[in-house]
Amino acid sequence: MTDHLANPEDETLDQERIDAVLEAVEAEDSGALDTLLDPLHAADIADLLEQIGGPDRRALLALWSHEIDGEILSEISDAIREEVIESLPREVLVEAVRDLESDDVVDILEDLEPPQQGVILDALESADRVAVEQAMAFPEYSAGRLMQRETVVAPEHWTVGEAIDFLRQAEHLPDQFYHVILVDPRMKPVGYVTLGRILSSGREMALRAITEDSFRTIEATEPEADVAYIFNQYHLISCPVVDSAGRLVGVITIDDAMNVLDEEHEEDMLRLAGVGEESSISDGVWDTVKARLPWLAISLVTANIGALVISQFEAVIAKIVVLAALMPVVAAMGGNAATQSLTVAVRALATRDLTGANAFRVVRRELAVGVINGLCFAGVMATAAWILFGAPMVGAVIGLALIITLIVAALAGVLVPLLLNRLGFDPALSSGTFVITMTDVIGFFAFLGLATVMLL
Amino acid sequence: MTDHLANPEDETLDQERIDAVLEAVEAEDSGALDTLLDPLHAADIADLLEQIGGPDRRALLALWSHEIDGEILSEISDAIREEVIESLPREVLVEAVRDLESDDVVDILEDLEPPQQGVILDALESADRVAVEQAMAFPEYSAGRLMQRETVVAPEHWTVGEAIDFLRQAEHLPDQFYHVILVDPRMKPVGYVTLGRILSSGREMALRAITEDSFRTIEATEPEADVAYIFNQYHLISCPVVDSAGRLVGVITIDDAMNVLDEEHEEDMLRLAGVGEESSISDGVWDTVKARLPWLAISLVTANIGALVISQFEAVIAKIVVLAALMPVVAAMGGNAATQSLTVAVRALATRDLTGANAFRVVRRELAVGVINGLCFAGVMATAAWILFGAPMVGAVIGLALIITLIVAALAGVLVPLLLNRLGFDPALSSGTFVITMTDVIGFFAFLGLATVMLL
Repeated sequence: MTDHLANPEDETLDQERIDAVLEAVEAEDSGALDTLLDPLHAADIADLLEQIGGPDRRALLALWSHEIDGEILSEISDAIREEVIESLPREVLVEAVRDLESDDVVDILEDLEPPQQGVILDALESADRVAVEQAMAFPEYSAGRLMQRETVVAPEHWTVGEAIDFLRQAEHLPDQFYHVILVDPRMKPVGYVTLGRILSSGREMALRAITEDSFRTIEATEPEADVAYIFNQYHLISCPVVDSAGRLVGVITIDDAMNVLDEEHEEDMLRLAGVGEESSISDGVWDTVKARLPWLAISLVTANIGALVISQFEAVIAKIVVLAALMPVVAAMGGNAATQSLTVAVRALATRDLTGANAFRVVRRELAVGVINGLCFAGVMATAAWILFGAPMVGAVIGLALIITLIVAALAGVLVPLLLNRLGFDPALSSGTFVITMTDVIGFFAFLGLATVMLL
Repeated sequence: MTDHLANPEDETLDQERIDAVLEAVEAEDSGALDTLLDPLHAADIADLLEQIGGPDRRALLALWSHEIDGEILSEISDAIREEVIESLPREVLVEAVRDLESDDVVDILEDLEPPQQGVILDALESADRVAVEQAMAFPEYSAGRLMQRETVVAPEHWTVGEAIDFLRQAEHLPDQFYHVILVDPRMKPVGYVTLGRILSSGREMALRAITEDSFRTIEATEPEADVAYIFNQYHLISCPVVDSAGRLVGVITIDDAMNVLDEEHEEDMLRLAGVGEESSISDGVWDTVKARLPWLAISLVTANIGALVISQFEAVIAKIVVLAALMPVVAAMGGNAATQSLTVAVRALATRDLTGANAFRVVRRELAVGVINGLCFAGVMATAAWILFGAPMVGAVIGLALIITLIVAALAGVLVPLLLNRLGFDPALSSGTFVITMTDVIGFFAFLGLATVMLL
């Protein structure tokens, strides 16, 4: 801990500093690099490494790799972490990894190939190594992977004074902790006390008399998405993690939960858009193509189903060519309305605001919204078709088709994710393609079918 | 603080309990309601109130409104909060509001109409009322609205022992605090010390010797989105808020920042989908229509632009009707590819991973991805058109059109949000409609234009 009172504020990363860093790299001036990078937070240095191009990054690391520490390493995104680790001299890597808490080491290990994992495990002291290997034994994306094993516990019968004396003598406390967890003789957590309450109570106060009102534990095998939900729902700051017998095995803190929440959001958003959920702005061309091509391929197949439906109606299109011009209107309105109701439903399922208790009411509301929007736009579009294309009967056809399409869109947008969720799939995954195709196909069929009946 | 050791775990809200609650409401059995609801966390009671229908909610409140406390009130979503507040007897409301910290009161006030705001302000004790009114004087969605005014500070020259003695004697400490903020004689924050470090240091230790390495303050006028970014980027647990002269005026804690992060995500996701950002699954039919209709209206206008482009090519469509069947393929592929690159760009702008430093490289990558995807799908689709519709020249036309469309989609998806961001608009807002229309229009024009040149 250094004395920061002279200059309390950390500096930030801006374009000016990035330009100065790139100049220093080009001039191979490692002194200037130190001056520019030392005042930055590790998270900003990681961002800088991600945002500059590959050749600049390699040149910077060649000059400055001895300064890379554990904190920077754990802030770097997966897309470039392997490259950075490979560039580090062995002794720098050993030093960096020994600095970290077990959960941060696990986070780094997860995304590495086995040979690099070995290098990092070898760098750890044996007690840390055992802790990390035990955490890696839990399933991926589980609470066990997320937790840090360093906990601060006290027997349930202790007083505030005993807890303070224990903390003053403890040799190895976690960097950040917010509660003292009370445990029974079998190491089962029975409550926790905030540090604020310990500090503001007299030494004689029994810890069990000042535990928090609300107390929860998380099982180590629970998925990390549930962990994020529990922290967000119950405003937790930290939460003890237990094994299947209920014994304390670690603790998860809110910064890790916030990180998971952020990743879950990103995943939902990217999945809805049909982009591989691991996509990042710093991916290369081939990783990007690999993430996007499969979903475009699916959409090509589904679009061709729409094309096949349309081709059944060639006779009516050949006679009334304006129908061809209006088809994209049906598709666009259906696609947009479906995206609206789909997005609201996927989001509400993720936040657990859409459940069995209100599903029926939500579906009924979507139906009503579909009918109202359908009637509005049918009126407008029928008039527009009349004015723009001088065809009143075509206007009637597209109006009716829009009513049907918007109802289908609103219903499919909520029913498909509900169904996927019930079947145990992620409702965000590929709902988009599925719902929009369904809407398009029904829309085209309605539009051209009505045209055949009403105009031929 | 009650002793919870006998039953440490809170119970959760599941379908079974919801059904039991609804039965108790129907039987007007308020004793059974107490038994069912008392063990629940306030956040779960709020969820229950949101998920049951309006008539059930009113019946429940009629039986149980005396039990509604401040915590439940601050957990309830805006969509139904006004209704709940109106149902509360005056004395219950007064009691509930007096329980809360100033930031929670501000959060409730923000979404109420002036007459209800008055009722709540009147319920506060005068010191709290002043604090709340001062917070309300800051702009909406600013750090000043988000902060709590209750802070725990110490003069910079104090020792650990002095801080502990002060905390033991303090009459009114915040419910949750994680740091002691050190201030100079003009109340400017100069650093902070975690409670963990205070507890683990000897009484003689100077506080300024154990401050955290990294220290930041936030100005009260900064937008809350920046607050969320700073907490997430720098892993803060709490952060002092200062006025324009740098004096301490409050503190923001991570649970509030996590909440903002969650709302910002939701906003981005809903805006991208063209749904008003305040949409919620518990909105009624009219609120839902109001949120969605404007965006559908815009998409109707833009779809008609596409229709007008197509109608310029009626001659070629009338001759080669299969073109009409293939147009939706062009639109679907363009729309999906545009959504992919748009979503990645909007997300990267929100997390500040896409900046001036890498914009050019990202645009170049999108161009490369567009070319590669274009070539792949051009080949596949040209072959498919040949096989499905027996028209090799039509295959060549749609192949070339797809290459152009996918390149336009990839570029527009990143350039439009970059431009909106540079101009100071939210890149998520309406990018979707704009980008997809642009792609569609260029795609239709390329497809039908090429058809006119190559097939007529």
